[in-house]
Parts: sequence; structure tokens; C-alpha cells
Amino acid sequence: MEGDPALQLRVFDLNCWAIRYLSKRRQERIRLIGDQLCREGFDLVLLQEIWSEQDYSDLKAKLGDCCPFSHYFRSGVIGSGLCVFSKFPILDTLLYQYSLNGYPYMLQHGDWFCGKSVGLVQGGSQPLCPPFFQLHAEYCREKDAYLPHRIVQAWELAQFIRHTAKAADVVLLGGDLNMHPEDVGIRLLRGWTGLQDTFTEAKRFEGCEDGCTLIPSNCFTFKSELQPFPLGIRIDYVLYKAVSSFTVECEELRTTTGTAPGTDIPYSDHEAVMATLHIQRKRQAASVTRGMAGPALAEVLSEALTEVHVGLLAARWQRYSSGRMAVLALLLLLLQAVAVLGMLAGLAAGQPFPKLSFSLLAFLAVAVLLLAAGLHLFHSIEVKMLQGTEEQMRMAMRVLQEHP
Amino acid sequence: MEGDPALQLRVFDLNCWAIRYLSKRRQERIRLIGDQLCREGFDLVLLQEIWSEQDYSDLKAKLGDCCPFSHYFRSGVIGSGLCVFSKFPILDTLLYQYSLNGYPYMLQHGDWFCGKSVGLVQGGSQPLCPPFFQLHAEYCREKDAYLPHRIVQAWELAQFIRHTAKAADVVLLGGDLNMHPEDVGIRLLRGWTGLQDTFTEAKRFEGCEDGCTLIPSNCFTFKSELQPFPLGIRIDYVLYKAVSSFTVECEELRTTTGTAPGTDIPYSDHEAVMATLHIQRKRQAASVTRGMAGPALAEVLSEALTEVHVGLLAARWQRYSSGRMAVLALLLLLLQAVAVLGMLAGLAAGQPFPKLSFSLLAFLAVAVLLLAAGLHLFHSIEVKMLQGTEEQMRMAMRVLQEHP
Repeated sequence: MEGDPALQLRVFDLNCWAIRYLSKRRQERIRLIGDQLCREGFDLVLLQEIWSEQDYSDLKAKLGDCCPFSHYFRSGVIGSGLCVFSKFPILDTLLYQYSLNGYPYMLQHGDWFCGKSVGLVQGGSQPLCPPFFQLHAEYCREKDAYLPHRIVQAWELAQFIRHTAKAADVVLLGGDLNMHPEDVGIRLLRGWTGLQDTFTEAKRFEGCEDGCTLIPSNCFTFKSELQPFPLGIRIDYVLYKAVSSFTVECEELRTTTGTAPGTDIPYSDHEAVMATLHIQRKRQAASVTRGMAGPALAEVLSEALTEVHVGLLAARWQRYSSGRMAVLALLLLLLQAVAVLGMLAGLAAGQPFPKLSFSLLAFLAVAVLLLAAGLHLFHSIEVKMLQGTEEQMRMAMRVLQEHP
Repeated sequence: MEGDPALQLRVFDLNCWAIRYLSKRRQERIRLIGDQLCREGFDLVLLQEIWSEQDYSDLKAKLGDCCPFSHYFRSGVIGSGLCVFSKFPILDTLLYQYSLNGYPYMLQHGDWFCGKSVGLVQGGSQPLCPPFFQLHAEYCREKDAYLPHRIVQAWELAQFIRHTAKAADVVLLGGDLNMHPEDVGIRLLRGWTGLQDTFTEAKRFEGCEDGCTLIPSNCFTFKSELQPFPLGIRIDYVLYKAVSSFTVECEELRTTTGTAPGTDIPYSDHEAVMATLHIQRKRQAASVTRGMAGPALAEVLSEALTEVHVGLLAARWQRYSSGRMAVLALLLLLLQAVAVLGMLAGLAAGQPFPKLSFSLLAFLAVAVLLLAAGLHLFHSIEVKMLQGTEEQMRMAMRVLQEHP
């Protein structure tokens, strides 16, 4: 790079929706994605929701020539689903798991089992340090029980980027953030890190209207979920930032628009985001790219704080109510034990309880006790984590006010 | 600092062993620790195992004058137990929870519930970025089932420090690492980060022989555990590193030696470590402090890799055996269901099973099923995490060999 004044970096980002047995025409789509990546020859490929290691291995074999370096991030029960392919050597990786990640009993959503996380990849001889990640999935904007968790994740992601990217030349962040551009989580992330959005900064744009990445014309999307948004929604991003003596410009941004060329199906239920970045070394080191102005940032922070506090109140209530349920189940069990002991001691005249319903009741009480204790444990962790985030945000607010 | 050429930084580090209802004479010891800190006026106080927020609040009230800035790190069910008090403003904090942290069913150890983690604290106007943390507790060196987990934690800690400390001027790491100086985890941590040990570098040392921090003469330590080590063991450390245009020297290191002055009890079952560091700005920015030489580091890495691999094999076996147990319990339940259905359909002549033992058996099968399924889930996560660490270490090894 010293002798070469500029680098053109072509980035591909896609949420592949490759869940074994569940995602439609998965293997066919993975093959299509691999073919497309081979044809176009991107420098950096960021994929999400590659849940099966077999799919990763297939892609790795296919991309061996154009992107010889790759990494698959492991975490949670099923994995993180994150993988990265690169033309440049990958020197180091780091995985950061979000502390809150949905609820284990929301089995139909499955987020808790995935171990949602952000994976950091450090590029080598090229002066690039691109972290890459995915935030918590959004299910229903109307009554969003996950909102505080997603704000905690946006905050943790922003903090992770701030702390790890200090010595990087260029920071790239690609992934399915599951938040609209105007949502408080995105504004917090962008304001707190100074990351810029390729969609708003690109000199040329080609693709779905408004840069949407979840569109009604894609045959795999749920039409009912997109009803309030006739154009679709934009939730997949490529964000960037030049940290030290470099400048980054987005020359072009493209998205896919439904079906893949030459076939009747799209690559995924999401559209791919393809950005061409122009990275150049500056003659003089200049001041670091600033995020939002102080007052605007303070406003976003206070909005996020409110949401986290609402989540904290809900989590406290759930902790209390699951604890109460556990105590009630324990009392019932004790009562039954006393009854049995009384019977054994011959205090009761005859057998007042039918044996079967008595043991069924005990069985139920034990099940409720175990379940409620587990929930109590889980919500206790949730309360601690929300409290911790609230405190960190308050500290950030104080620092902002003292050093605007 | 620009006008002031040097800074003397006095650091206090102690594992306080302050577990509510369990630790002996806890409130008295917390009072003693607070008094001692007020008297001595340290610049930075790193405390571990402060499990009760009430103890933290008491210390905070007491230290308000000498260390006006403080932070308590929240995580896990009970908390992280980590807190920091500082003379300098704390501008930012970050908590990183280790991905592996003992086993939830080892209730007597309790590690899983604590959420062991590393807390990062970023100092403000002073050019200091001291992370501060505690590693997994060691219980029995003879048959150490936790060893792979502790190596994973040492590796994650080293990676966390490498990635977050790049832009820091000075890195300080204090805490109870629960590893002896010659253990592979410590060698890995020091080699991979370049951190230096205050005990070996100090110009003056005063305290327990060999710098031990868990000594037989402390009335709270378990004598039987220390039997193989007549002098005691050194498991609490203050490590440091100057990253950019600064030099750090350790002028003095002290440890407490059993009972606190003027009383008949020690501050804790651990001895406190007190370091005086001399931090100076260099005239010219020099090269970054290097860790171990390449070949020595590669040797440590390969030793750690072996241990992680052993842990991986054990975790895979446990995952398999808990899965098999869950399947067996499920089969038993199905068999019982078939028997009940058969009976209801009138296929069986009369009632062949005594009702009570039949329902007790069903109850047992459900309990075993739930337990085994939970264990299977847990060991699946363990396998993923050990695999991920193994891969990261192999990548580091490759990079070391290619760029020695």
C-alpha cells in the first residue's frame, strides 16, 4: 500500500438464510451464491446465516481460487452462522457474543440458541481491519419485546468497535442489523462509532428502491410482515470508517433485485449488498472521522436509555413473577410431603387422596418448580445485563456532557 | 501529562473473598480494606470477589475522597464481583465474558453462575487504559478438569487485550489469574500480549517469599490445598505494558503478609498486591514492546493447543454420553406411553403395573430426560467454543510461522 496510492475494495454482504431442513431450496441457492461470487471476484465476502458447516465447506472449496482465505465463527449450540471469505490473508479473528440474545423459551424464534455475535476479522498486509457481524433478528415491529435486547446489542457492538478499531486504518462493518435506518439502535451505533452508511454516501446506486434488502417481490419473504412497507425495508448494511491516515469513499453500491440472473429463484430471502470502496492514503494524518455532534448524540443516547430502562422494568417484573411461581410450586410440594408423612404416621383415617392424581399433582409441581427456577435464573441475568448497559450509557452521557 | 514528564501510579489489587453468608468475617474485613485504602491513598484499586453490591456501595462511600471514580461490573446471575476505584476519571468501560466458565452442575464451585469476565476501564485525562480482570478459579491441580476452560479463558483474555489495547498508551492488568507463573495459561497470556510481570521486574520487593499471594500462614486459606507448596502459591498478579511512546518501570512491589496491621485477621484469604509504577513519556516513539520470541511463543501455543484438544475430546464424549442418556429416557417414556395406551385399549388383561411405581418411573424418566437434554445442550456449546479456540490458535500458529 505504501507504493500503491489507492486500493479499490469490492465487498459482498448477504444474509444467506441457510437453515438446514427449514430454508427453502437451500442447497440450490448456496450453489448459486458460490457461482455468482466466483464470477464477480469480490475482495471481501461477508455471509450470515450459514448455519451448516457443510455449506461453509462447499463454499470454501468453490471460492478457493478467488478468495483463498476464510473463517467460520463458531458459537452457541448451533453456531454463529457468520463466515468471511477474503482475497487478503486473515491474520486474526475475535468473536464477541452479545450478552442478551432473546429468550430461551421462544423456541419458534431460536435466537437464544444461535449465540448471535459479532466476529472481528483482521486483514493482513493490506491496512484493513474489518469487523463484521449480525445483530439480533427483529420479528414484529408492532409489539417489540426484543427492542431492549437489540439496543443492548447495538450498544455492545458500538462499544466493541470503538475499543477494537482504535488502531485500525479502515473499519468495515457488514451484516444484517435487523434495524431500519431511522431506528434508535442504528442511530446509536452510527453516532457512537462514527461509521458511515454506504447507501447514503455512494456516488452511484443501482438496485431496489430506497436500498431495501427485504422486498415484497422476493418470493421467499413473508408478505404479511412487509405489508406496512410497500417498497420493502432496508436492514442489511455495509458501513465504513477511515480511522487514521486514510480516506474511504464509496464509489458504487448495488443490491440484487429479487431473482438471480438466469434462474427463477433469488439467492436468499434478503437481497445482497455489494459496495465498491476507494481507499486512499492521505498525505498528512488528519483528525479522526467524527460521529454525530454532541447534542444529537446525547439525544439518541437518552432515547436508547429510555428503551433499556423500559426493558429493565419488564425484566424485573418477570424475574419477580417467575420467582413467585417457583416458591408456590415448592410450597405445594412441601404440602404434599407433609400429607404423605401424615399418612405414613397414621394420622389420617384411611387414604383421602386418589394415588394417581396425587402423584400427577406432584409431577406437575416439580415441573413448574424446575421451569420457574430456570426462568428466574435467566431473568436475573437479563436484569444484571440491562443494569450494566444502563450504567455504561449513563457514564457515556456524563462524559459527553463534561467533554462535549 | 504533556507538561509533566513522569507519573507515579500506585496500584492496589486484592481478591477480597467477600461472599455473602459464606465468607468468614466479611463485613469486618471489608471495613478493614476500606480503612487501609483510605490511609494509603492508592491511585488505582482493583478488587475481585466483591459479590454483594452493598459491600461495593460501602467501599464507594468510604473511598469517596481518595478515589472519587469507581465502577462495578455486572454480569451473570450473581455478578462479576469485579470493581475498580480510581483517582482519575473513568471515561469508558467494557465487559467481556469468557465463553467457557466451568460447569453449571458443579454447584459447589459456583463458577458458572458468576459470569467470570474481564472488565476494561479506560482512564481519562491521564493516558492510561488499564484493563482489569479475573480468570477462572482453580480448584485442584492434581486432576484438573477445568484446565482446558482456563486455557480458553487465558487465550480469550490475551486476544481481548491485543485487540483493545492497540491504541492505549499503557496497559495494566491486575487480578487473581488462578494460575502459577510457570503454568501454560500465564505463559500464553504473557507471550501473546507482551505484558510484563511486576514481581520479576520490580526494583524493590517486600512481602511474602517468592511473591506468594495464597500462603499457609493466612488463617483463612485451606491448609490441605497448599500442602504441596510449603511457601504458598503466587496466583495474583499486576502485569503491565507500555504500548506507544511511553515507558513503564516497576519501582516497588509489596504484598501483605497474613494479618492486617493492628488486628488479628487478614484482609482476605488472598494477599493484596501493591505495585508502584513509574510512567514516563519517551522523547521519541519507539517500537512496541515485544512479547516472547517467535519460537518460544510457538512452543507455548502448541502446548496450549494440546490441552485444548484434550478438553475438546472430553467435551465431545460428554456431549455424546448425555445425548445417549436423553434418548434412553425418551425411549422409556415412549414405552410407558405405549403400555398405558395398550391398557386403555383393553389389550392387557387387567392392570399389570402397580400404579405408584409406574408413575414414579415416568417421573424419573422425565427428570433424567430434562437433565440429560440440558447437559447435551451445554456440552454442545462447550464443543463449539473449544473448536473455535483451537482454530484461532492454529491461525495464530500459522501467522507466527509465516511472519516470524
